[in-house]
Amino acid sequence: MRDFLPGDKAHRERVLGLIRDTYTRHGFDEIETPVMEESSRLHAGLGGDNEKLAFGVLKRGLTAEQFQNATEPLDLTDLGLRFDLTVPLTRFYASHHAALPGVFRAIQIAPVWRAERPQKGRYRQFMQCDIDIIGEAGVLAEVELLTATVDVLGTLGLDTARLRINDRRLLTSMLTVLGFPVKEHASILITIDKLDKIGVSGVIEELRDRVIPAGPVDALEAFFNRPVTLEHLSFGERAVRKLLPEGVDDVAVAELAALGAALPDNVRTLLDFDPFLVRGMGYYTGTIMEIAHPELGYALGGGGRYDGMVGRFLGSDVPAVGMSLGFERIVDLVAVETGQTDATALLYDATVPAAQLAELKSTFIAGGARVRLERRPKKVAALLDSLAASGFTRFAFVTPDSTADTLEFKPLSAPE
Amino acid sequence: MRDFLPGDKAHRERVLGLIRDTYTRHGFDEIETPVMEESSRLHAGLGGDNEKLAFGVLKRGLTAEQFQNATEPLDLTDLGLRFDLTVPLTRFYASHHAALPGVFRAIQIAPVWRAERPQKGRYRQFMQCDIDIIGEAGVLAEVELLTATVDVLGTLGLDTARLRINDRRLLTSMLTVLGFPVKEHASILITIDKLDKIGVSGVIEELRDRVIPAGPVDALEAFFNRPVTLEHLSFGERAVRKLLPEGVDDVAVAELAALGAALPDNVRTLLDFDPFLVRGMGYYTGTIMEIAHPELGYALGGGGRYDGMVGRFLGSDVPAVGMSLGFERIVDLVAVETGQTDATALLYDATVPAAQLAELKSTFIAGGARVRLERRPKKVAALLDSLAASGFTRFAFVTPDSTADTLEFKPLSAPE
Repeated sequence: MRDFLPGDKAHRERVLGLIRDTYTRHGFDEIETPVMEESSRLHAGLGGDNEKLAFGVLKRGLTAEQFQNATEPLDLTDLGLRFDLTVPLTRFYASHHAALPGVFRAIQIAPVWRAERPQKGRYRQFMQCDIDIIGEAGVLAEVELLTATVDVLGTLGLDTARLRINDRRLLTSMLTVLGFPVKEHASILITIDKLDKIGVSGVIEELRDRVIPAGPVDALEAFFNRPVTLEHLSFGERAVRKLLPEGVDDVAVAELAALGAALPDNVRTLLDFDPFLVRGMGYYTGTIMEIAHPELGYALGGGGRYDGMVGRFLGSDVPAVGMSLGFERIVDLVAVETGQTDATALLYDATVPAAQLAELKSTFIAGGARVRLERRPKKVAALLDSLAASGFTRFAFVTPDSTADTLEFKPLSAPE
Repeated sequence: MRDFLPGDKAHRERVLGLIRDTYTRHGFDEIETPVMEESSRLHAGLGGDNEKLAFGVLKRGLTAEQFQNATEPLDLTDLGLRFDLTVPLTRFYASHHAALPGVFRAIQIAPVWRAERPQKGRYRQFMQCDIDIIGEAGVLAEVELLTATVDVLGTLGLDTARLRINDRRLLTSMLTVLGFPVKEHASILITIDKLDKIGVSGVIEELRDRVIPAGPVDALEAFFNRPVTLEHLSFGERAVRKLLPEGVDDVAVAELAALGAALPDNVRTLLDFDPFLVRGMGYYTGTIMEIAHPELGYALGGGGRYDGMVGRFLGSDVPAVGMSLGFERIVDLVAVETGQTDATALLYDATVPAAQLAELKSTFIAGGARVRLERRPKKVAALLDSLAASGFTRFAFVTPDSTADTLEFKPLSAPE
């Protein structure tokens, strides 16, 4: 967990504002849920491994006897901090769907918590920016989600980011076609998910070590090593099939091709069909997506279709698809904006009365400026550098006879 | 704890944005701290009664033996959710003061948590908006704080709000002058703090019931009933003294008069000197302030000078003064803004291809609009009302041959 000093906080708020504004223009509506959810909901099997990382909040008014009878955390907690924004969204939708549009496009921009061991780039509190479309079964949902995501990436200046796309049904039907028993699929996908890290040989080795039938592993290895590249495709049905073994799910192939055909050109040209994209969460039922960045070894975000999950809490069938931005990774890649229009620093010493300073400050604020009063230190240069770094654009020295009209301003320029 | 639906969330974000912008123009810098602090810091005696309301977060990896040996919550928790923003600020300043300006003006806009019993207008998670000035011992700090607060109240349209002001040193010297023993002061102030709720007779009765020496209580009653009104004063020294018993703290009277003299007219005319204003927290050492609203029975915010507290963590003397807005009360008083410029709804049916919808949506977004796609329902009127209520300003029906140029838009107007 981290503190954010003024410069970092201003940068983060600016980036969050750009994301919020862009998603809003794409017709999404922001909502908010409390940071705590009931423990039973956080541990209902929808969060995968993240459930183990949930912080539990101690029940109130526990007696000494209750402490002594407790054998596990859930005996003492009734609430916990959310580990993602998807579990809260499903609870929110189940509670409020009657008051929401038939197709509900949600924005959630909020912190989540995971009790991870501290390591580079991982925090126990971090921001997520999710958009979800609930109630739309057709590819239009994916089209809107991907179009909004590409617009956000462009707005943030992340022009080299690309999107990888696949379908869970293609993954599982591919495993079936290659001869893997269905009950092994989940664990095989966990291994394939490591492809970026351990490579083809690492994946094959890990599967052989786990004494999975040799035939399907050989077939998978041959398939991995077929002569194709994962470059951008037109998403035509024939092009998609060329990247897959014979006999995979026809419906999924057709839907992926329909998605490709419906996307605006500027979005489609940023997409790569990747038949080995897995995405960790077990709840995905169709399209899965990931934001890749060529210079980085990790994803900037991802998502997918999870048609079964919202309905579980509602007792009816509700299609849903979502995309989550990894804000903590993205915010470090966005250029910091320096310099603000008309940010004024007034430097004074002990001879200037407080009333005069207050009046000067009010005058410049009323004129539209951001104004900072600073006592004049012995070494002015360091203060001026610090003011420039904080976005102030001009300064003046105030004396007891200064008025707003007689102050002589000098420009401040941000350090190189 | 509450969910916020799109309309409420948009209103809250707009009000938070106005508060953030106004404080920023007044030269304050926003910071952020994690929602969890170490339990030992949350229970260090700085939070008054709020410490009892802190949610504790269960330690990770506890063994069965540790559960059985536990006798109180702190045996099992190492972190807790913050109950205010002042305790985190003192920790933040102690950690980072070397990287901060000599006089540090902080904005914190963030949620806090208190395990209160649910009751009207009280929530277990709620937002606070605090500004604090650390490092300025003179009245200029109070002047900047009050000026920024008055500007925020004006920006939010809360034109009838007023500010009550007092000084902790005047309160305690008044009690001494009236003859109350020093060791009783804290408990007597707790009773005087109920003046708004139980009136003069209630306060006097409660003090007599607690067998406090009769002489000082009689003197306090006579003083309460002296013929003065708590109207706006010029804050001249003579005017302040007229509201106080003879012999109160001369330094505090002079400083209050100096503050009055330094305030801009538009701020001073909103202030009332109230010699019985107490403010709950025990850590205040000088000026105390409260935002009152004539139509409401409760304060919209408050603050004061707490010179001893920051230095406690730093081992040196650091003056500090802060003001906290009661956001949950304020947000309900601010008028909801309806209607946005150029918010466009496109109504389509199943005959319109997804690609066409995606292209139309992109075209209008590129033109600066906020755009929502909506499947055309059987009953259009209800959808149009809902769109208007969400701030959409125009709509059109899309057919398979529609283009951006041929769509016929009709205006949407917000329901009365």
